[in-house]
Amino acid sequence: MKAIRTKIASRALGPGDRLPSIRRFAESMGVSPSTVVEAYGRLEAAGVLRARRGSGFYVTGADMPPMALGEMGSPRERAVDPFWVSRQSLDAEADVLKPGCGWMPANWMPNTAIRKGLRSVSRAAEGVLADYSTAYGSPRLRRLLIGRFAEEGLALPPEQIMLTSSGTEAIDLVCRLLLRPGDTVLVDDPCYFNFQALLRAHQVKICGIPFTPAGPDVAAFESAIAQEQPRLYITNSALHNPTGATISPQTAHRLLRIAGASGLTIVEDEIFADFEPAPSPRLAVLDGMERVIRIGSFSKTLSASIRCGYIAARAAWIESLVDLQIATRFGGPSPVSTEIIAAVLEGGTYRRHMDELRLRLIRARKDIAEQLASIGISPWIVPRGGFYLWCRLPQGQDSAVIAKRCMEERIVLAPGNVFSPTQSAACFMRFNVTQMADPRILPALRKAMQTG
Amino acid sequence: MKAIRTKIASRALGPGDRLPSIRRFAESMGVSPSTVVEAYGRLEAAGVLRARRGSGFYVTGADMPPMALGEMGSPRERAVDPFWVSRQSLDAEADVLKPGCGWMPANWMPNTAIRKGLRSVSRAAEGVLADYSTAYGSPRLRRLLIGRFAEEGLALPPEQIMLTSSGTEAIDLVCRLLLRPGDTVLVDDPCYFNFQALLRAHQVKICGIPFTPAGPDVAAFESAIAQEQPRLYITNSALHNPTGATISPQTAHRLLRIAGASGLTIVEDEIFADFEPAPSPRLAVLDGMERVIRIGSFSKTLSASIRCGYIAARAAWIESLVDLQIATRFGGPSPVSTEIIAAVLEGGTYRRHMDELRLRLIRARKDIAEQLASIGISPWIVPRGGFYLWCRLPQGQDSAVIAKRCMEERIVLAPGNVFSPTQSAACFMRFNVTQMADPRILPALRKAMQTG
Repeated sequence: MKAIRTKIASRALGPGDRLPSIRRFAESMGVSPSTVVEAYGRLEAAGVLRARRGSGFYVTGADMPPMALGEMGSPRERAVDPFWVSRQSLDAEADVLKPGCGWMPANWMPNTAIRKGLRSVSRAAEGVLADYSTAYGSPRLRRLLIGRFAEEGLALPPEQIMLTSSGTEAIDLVCRLLLRPGDTVLVDDPCYFNFQALLRAHQVKICGIPFTPAGPDVAAFESAIAQEQPRLYITNSALHNPTGATISPQTAHRLLRIAGASGLTIVEDEIFADFEPAPSPRLAVLDGMERVIRIGSFSKTLSASIRCGYIAARAAWIESLVDLQIATRFGGPSPVSTEIIAAVLEGGTYRRHMDELRLRLIRARKDIAEQLASIGISPWIVPRGGFYLWCRLPQGQDSAVIAKRCMEERIVLAPGNVFSPTQSAACFMRFNVTQMADPRILPALRKAMQTG
Repeated sequence: MKAIRTKIASRALGPGDRLPSIRRFAESMGVSPSTVVEAYGRLEAAGVLRARRGSGFYVTGADMPPMALGEMGSPRERAVDPFWVSRQSLDAEADVLKPGCGWMPANWMPNTAIRKGLRSVSRAAEGVLADYSTAYGSPRLRRLLIGRFAEEGLALPPEQIMLTSSGTEAIDLVCRLLLRPGDTVLVDDPCYFNFQALLRAHQVKICGIPFTPAGPDVAAFESAIAQEQPRLYITNSALHNPTGATISPQTAHRLLRIAGASGLTIVEDEIFADFEPAPSPRLAVLDGMERVIRIGSFSKTLSASIRCGYIAARAAWIESLVDLQIATRFGGPSPVSTEIIAAVLEGGTYRRHMDELRLRLIRARKDIAEQLASIGISPWIVPRGGFYLWCRLPQGQDSAVIAKRCMEERIVLAPGNVFSPTQSAACFMRFNVTQMADPRILPALRKAMQTG
């Protein structure tokens, strides 16, 4: 009973999640099945679990404890879950290598342009330095976004765009507006691991749609909608995280047709858009912002320190999201930050930086793919851009075990199952090619796969 | 029925709120009582309302619609509610006067120090410019906070302090950790209006405790705990918003004794602390961080643009709040921001700036109080510090009506009832003395009070 309550308290099990079968759980805990029968029964009586005829036990939404409350343990003691990768990456000391992390090394970023932006803002008007931002955020930066969208054939008025403090905050605000505990949300399987952490914080049920090299599996998407009546589908367009895949025009069109018929709202996160060699289909553009909410940020290409994200959506939704942002943050991103970002984007420096970066990444992906191939690790697809390689490990290897072994060597990896809502990616690993120059990584990986 | 549903959709009515009596609602809508009986009955059948024997109709938590969803209308058409003041102040054009807003004019802020900080950060290491912050936030800034707390006799280890992107976000994270929809939260009556907007977003019941010149009314606090079993009490220490009052040592001690007996958690927001001539009692210090969560920010004294807040609490709570911040924002405030703030705080410039500012504010409070007295408006108390004067209007005046009239003259006011959970402050108005230098304000106020 304690083990299950701890899992619920630590959000390892969320509302609507099914518990392991009695036999499997008894085996994993080293107790008799009758003990598990009794524990499940008591938790059911306490309202923590609900039994469904012929289908097992489920966590009830209604009886979720307040979140976490210190029962989660320190990061190093934790299970290899989405938080594990985030915390290990964010708090890594200088000597730790991070092929599992989700950003490029600082010296790959356009720092000269950022330094110039900081100097320029140091001379800005007093209001930029001292005041809160306007409710929707910097008109200058929003105009730049309108210009970008117009290039794609999507004409948006300013009241359909707001700025946020990060891309994650953008999705969080949308979830706060549209979701209620117990709702179902579709995500890709695999998907960006923090989507799962975020959705757990909203106490919703997560349903994974198998991801193919051309986007989500359309048949699975359609049947999930029929069976689960989800409120939202959250996906990465442009370059999918973790796979680096791009949605095909046909898949994009079909998804929207199905979503339209069922009233589903889609959140399209285009955070890796600027890494694309040429723009791929955007659900928001095809849809004309009827049911798609488009979000993005500058953290991957410009700076993760000078934080800013955006939301483009129906005007009425944006209006409510702006209120929600005032209630929960008292406003959007720092005017200092948005002025720096606008200054960097407006100049030609950023465009040249991205042109060079794309070439550098082609070489890095090729180089790292060859190195990984030499130890039997092969990419699932060859991505068109970005810095991720989603790779299959040699037969029989468990990426969580390898990640734990490499952590002992001070190397942070991103094992497949932290990305997989169905825990079906144990034999996959996401590699960040920009974080793999150190010669210690390959030997450590090889050794971790040979041990045990 | 539509009127009630709209109020619920717009969060004017939250879960647990009582509806007006049948007779009062019939009068206000200009319909017959039997129409209201029917409407309430239908809404009860639909699960939107619940009748309690002998006590009226209440909004159920379970049937809250997704928040807002564009039914809130544009800010100018809106009722004078907490969002009205925020939106009017944040989005005010350059010629609009803002005696109702919650911050000082940009030219009262330490801009020279901020400019110097920006130039210094433009030369910082690449990691500061490009990387995400560590999970708890800048160790340098957290050390500064530890030093400040130590001066008050509160020794805290680093793992009990985390940084956030704003003071509001700090409270929001705490609410996400500790509250569930339908919980009850105590606030002061009057209190900072955005506490109410924030708590509505959490779908909790708000209970106001009458505020006295020495802090919350202790007897009312005790009986609210007995009757409502609240989960949290949120208050401003140092200088209370909107009244400018300071809690007395006796009240602080009694509050903690009562909270301790009932297991209540207290959020103490000390955002105006640096405006105090000398430190007043802090619940967090007396309590030793057992049940008090201390939050603050630098937005009022240093910059509202370079945003940063903090939370000090039990280590286990901080650990969970850090995870929650990763899940919902992917980390804390910008390293660029925290480096600038630390640089400003470390130098003697900030201390000198605050010394001068306190003197300037004494003069401004005195000057504005005299001007207001000349038109019959008098402060409830004479605050020890800060830039607010909480004032009583002449007999028979309604501050919401005056605020609407002054808005037509392009003057944003903060009428009393936006601060009052019980709507019992119609004859009060909060004035920001730093925003009242313009000679148009007094005549406009006088005229608004004479009209009608």
